[in-house]
Amino acid sequence: MKIPSKHIENAVDQIASLPGIGRRTALRLVLNLMNRSTEEITDFSEAFLQMKEHVKNCITCGNISDEETCEICCNARRDQSLICVVEDIRDVLAIESTESYKGVYHVLGGIISPMDGVGPSDLNIASLVERITNGEVNEVIFALSATMEGDTTNFFIYKKLRDFNIEVSTLSRGVAVGSELQYADEVTLSRSLLNRQPFEI
Amino acid sequence: MKIPSKHIENAVDQIASLPGIGRRTALRLVLNLMNRSTEEITDFSEAFLQMKEHVKNCITCGNISDEETCEICCNARRDQSLICVVEDIRDVLAIESTESYKGVYHVLGGIISPMDGVGPSDLNIASLVERITNGEVNEVIFALSATMEGDTTNFFIYKKLRDFNIEVSTLSRGVAVGSELQYADEVTLSRSLLNRQPFEI
Repeated sequence: MKIPSKHIENAVDQIASLPGIGRRTALRLVLNLMNRSTEEITDFSEAFLQMKEHVKNCITCGNISDEETCEICCNARRDQSLICVVEDIRDVLAIESTESYKGVYHVLGGIISPMDGVGPSDLNIASLVERITNGEVNEVIFALSATMEGDTTNFFIYKKLRDFNIEVSTLSRGVAVGSELQYADEVTLSRSLLNRQPFEI
Repeated sequence: MKIPSKHIENAVDQIASLPGIGRRTALRLVLNLMNRSTEEITDFSEAFLQMKEHVKNCITCGNISDEETCEICCNARRDQSLICVVEDIRDVLAIESTESYKGVYHVLGGIISPMDGVGPSDLNIASLVERITNGEVNEVIFALSATMEGDTTNFFIYKKLRDFNIEVSTLSRGVAVGSELQYADEVTLSRSLLNRQPFEI
């Protein structure tokens, strides 16, 4: 597909550099932008520059924030002694949207994955240990992906934390709420049998 | 999903304003942008501003171009007496990628669709009539979508052109090459029976 304008070509390349967007979709999006006014395009472009300039990572937990310290770490109503360890900012948003967690977070910025060249030193693990050394932490919850990499990371962090007098827990694994049993995979099903819970009414 | 930064929120809103992109996807794309360097973000933003500033519509056919007149209209090897009428720039790209069309184009910029408030006066129909009045045009090919709106637009333009001494044709409709007969819809199948062609070896 030869685009008859190098400026459009360039815009298409930029949009197609985003994950999961191919050149055909990128062209559709760029042509949509082309139909907008100059002011709208300026607002569009300015949004990313402003974001890059002003958004910081919280110095305590690594979550995104417009301030030095994020809203969750600043919030006196949150239980600062309970830390949930997550891979990514999106995991924070996912847990926050449940509205059922009242502790704080620690964003690792990834998980240990030798295949992708991500080692423990690339993650915010030292700052987690520091938080626990300095602060009044009672419990750390591992909320990483239920994959080999997630388990490896859990184990690596657990080794760092076991000398502290804190509880370490992990999210329960099992059949998803609302899903049919026959569609659950074998490992999940056997794990949820093993970790069966007392029946409650 | 409450995003803890108004700058990120703004960037997500901008990306989500593109057609077919929801807020969840937009957030994923924005977080990908967040991980890029300031130079990369500047290049990203600049691409759209440059595009808006420099890309024009060809004064002859309405195709996108970096110059006043597009490459196709300028090209002396193209048959300027054969005009293919299309809805959109993407249709030009689609036909160009077949490498089997040697005429020129006329981009309408849409099709007549009363439901969407698009009337004949919103389209580049007057400029098509002008091209035919002034130029040495032998044939006009309608290459609009095979929908009710496309047929309406074809008919509207046909009425404008029938007093000129030119041929007017339309793309053939029929079973797609490589597709199985049983999956063709009834209307297409009956049309391709009606317009059956002499068998060629």
